[in-house]
Amino acid sequence: MEVVEEEVSNKQIILKEYVSGFPKESDMVVKTGTIRLQLPEGSKNAILVKNLYLSCDPAMRGRMRKTEDSYVESFTPGSPIIGYGVARVLDSGHPNFKKGDLVWGMTGWEEYSVIKAPESVFKIQNTNVPLSYYIGILGMPGMTAYAGFYELCSPKQGEYVFISAASGAVGQLVGQFAKLSGCYVVGSAGTKEKVDLLKNKFGFDEAFNYKEEVLEAALKRYFPNGIDIYFENVGGKMLDAVLLNMRLRGRIAVCGMISQYNLEQPEGVHNLFCLITKRVRMEGFIVFDYYHMYPKFLDMILPHIKEGKITYVEDIAEGLESAPAALIGLFAGHNVGKQVVVVARE
Amino acid sequence: MEVVEEEVSNKQIILKEYVSGFPKESDMVVKTGTIRLQLPEGSKNAILVKNLYLSCDPAMRGRMRKTEDSYVESFTPGSPIIGYGVARVLDSGHPNFKKGDLVWGMTGWEEYSVIKAPESVFKIQNTNVPLSYYIGILGMPGMTAYAGFYELCSPKQGEYVFISAASGAVGQLVGQFAKLSGCYVVGSAGTKEKVDLLKNKFGFDEAFNYKEEVLEAALKRYFPNGIDIYFENVGGKMLDAVLLNMRLRGRIAVCGMISQYNLEQPEGVHNLFCLITKRVRMEGFIVFDYYHMYPKFLDMILPHIKEGKITYVEDIAEGLESAPAALIGLFAGHNVGKQVVVVARE
Repeated sequence: MEVVEEEVSNKQIILKEYVSGFPKESDMVVKTGTIRLQLPEGSKNAILVKNLYLSCDPAMRGRMRKTEDSYVESFTPGSPIIGYGVARVLDSGHPNFKKGDLVWGMTGWEEYSVIKAPESVFKIQNTNVPLSYYIGILGMPGMTAYAGFYELCSPKQGEYVFISAASGAVGQLVGQFAKLSGCYVVGSAGTKEKVDLLKNKFGFDEAFNYKEEVLEAALKRYFPNGIDIYFENVGGKMLDAVLLNMRLRGRIAVCGMISQYNLEQPEGVHNLFCLITKRVRMEGFIVFDYYHMYPKFLDMILPHIKEGKITYVEDIAEGLESAPAALIGLFAGHNVGKQVVVVARE
Repeated sequence: MEVVEEEVSNKQIILKEYVSGFPKESDMVVKTGTIRLQLPEGSKNAILVKNLYLSCDPAMRGRMRKTEDSYVESFTPGSPIIGYGVARVLDSGHPNFKKGDLVWGMTGWEEYSVIKAPESVFKIQNTNVPLSYYIGILGMPGMTAYAGFYELCSPKQGEYVFISAASGAVGQLVGQFAKLSGCYVVGSAGTKEKVDLLKNKFGFDEAFNYKEEVLEAALKRYFPNGIDIYFENVGGKMLDAVLLNMRLRGRIAVCGMISQYNLEQPEGVHNLFCLITKRVRMEGFIVFDYYHMYPKFLDMILPHIKEGKITYVEDIAEGLESAPAALIGLFAGHNVGKQVVVVARE
């Protein structure tokens, strides 16, 4: 006779309504339901997981508004927030996963989730690193930095690289990749603490606080010969200042535009004519398109982590209840490094 | 004893002062000087030419203002306007050119010019076509269309192509190249006459008058599946509307932004986030970088012209005195097709 698991409580972070303008903690609510720790009969291909670490990513802002035309679906008001997480498989109806597996991929903001189509979930093989790394350096942000920098920017030794939001989940890695490629690297961030991290922890050649500078002049000072590669995370005024400082045949990888996500109407960018005068290539990308390179990426990055050649800073929020504040904090720059939420350490 | 040529009169179009805002005819003045139709002793490498056809190009607007940071030098107030022209060599101190040669390249807006460094001047070999073609379809605009479309846009059969300022010197060719590549092609222009030309003369699938449309809606109507390739000639609001209608992995070749050239401050472009969601590549270019491909371009285009597969419409202004009005007219869209000024038919 099969043992039927009892129901346990399942805390969840629910999106109340679609959000316009700057999101607030009160746009989300903590709700406690129940869940049976066993997939229902006939749950072919689904997996049931216990969530361990959840990721706060800027791109989640887009899913809080109603859109029909985005690259990911909107969240469903009344349902849990969806995002990247690290989780333990408790029950599996999918041939690729078995009970006990550790995985990372899209999951719910709750203690336990049923992932109905786990085809895009990755099994974690290497556990000699902090598991939270799989929503950071070894997960989506790591792949984003890797694909955006190497595939779109084609870096060459000695080139001049600028990174905005440089201490964030992606930026800190792009800077370290650029140093490994023999580039000169400057980053911008929004506090003294972050600027110090860039210079002293991540090995950037220079860093500055964008809140304390006239952007165009600061870039001219740090890049008297111009910028070969700009890794774009913020958009708006920063992009305008960068355009004026690009170098002949420069490349701009457009990864994100966090400064614009909470505006009703995006700011105008005025200096696009520089694309012509400097023959600049500006290209947007989404990490989804590069996940086939994930094994190659791991082969590259795991030895670097082991040898201490690449480091990663996380900002850890404890407990699922802390997740709404952690997510909102991203847009005010409260996080120092990759914003992680710990749901359970098992 | 060497024959010393007598001086002849040499009419010139002089830029009076640097221009801000919308240029006016009165920013230029016709002046008549004299010139001896013989290079002075020791004019090593120079050539003396009689100008036959002069070109009015939107990019000349940039040279009317004082800039230190552009890709071409500013004009010199008090001196003749500089631009592309077709000319006959009257005297040569350069080993590559001899008296009687026909050439095209940078020359002065005057009857006779001394070209001091003719290294970038092309000798005209094929005279079975109208000579004015060498400042149009067989000159800089032709090479611009060729390089921008084939090199930057990598067109594939069946792709959806949009061209702004589509009846202009460059646009009319891009559209015909796109049709030869098996693409679906739509162009925008600013009068009914031009729209008719696009559809009836150049074989565009569709065309519209941008002054009579809500741009975003018009593009959605003509491109229900989105735009694969945008050949950008105008910038500003048109670019914003296009960004909202781009297709996954679309390409934007940024050739020019004529709508912005006479503004004190360029308009803001708001929809750059679409570069990310649609993974769009946007790249600026300048024809200078592609002139090494000129022989290959001629091999391609001359047979097409001969066989009537490609056609070219010119707007001919008679006489050097008509040049200032012809140039200013570009920015109001007065020209229908490539704007040419005839200085002399020999």
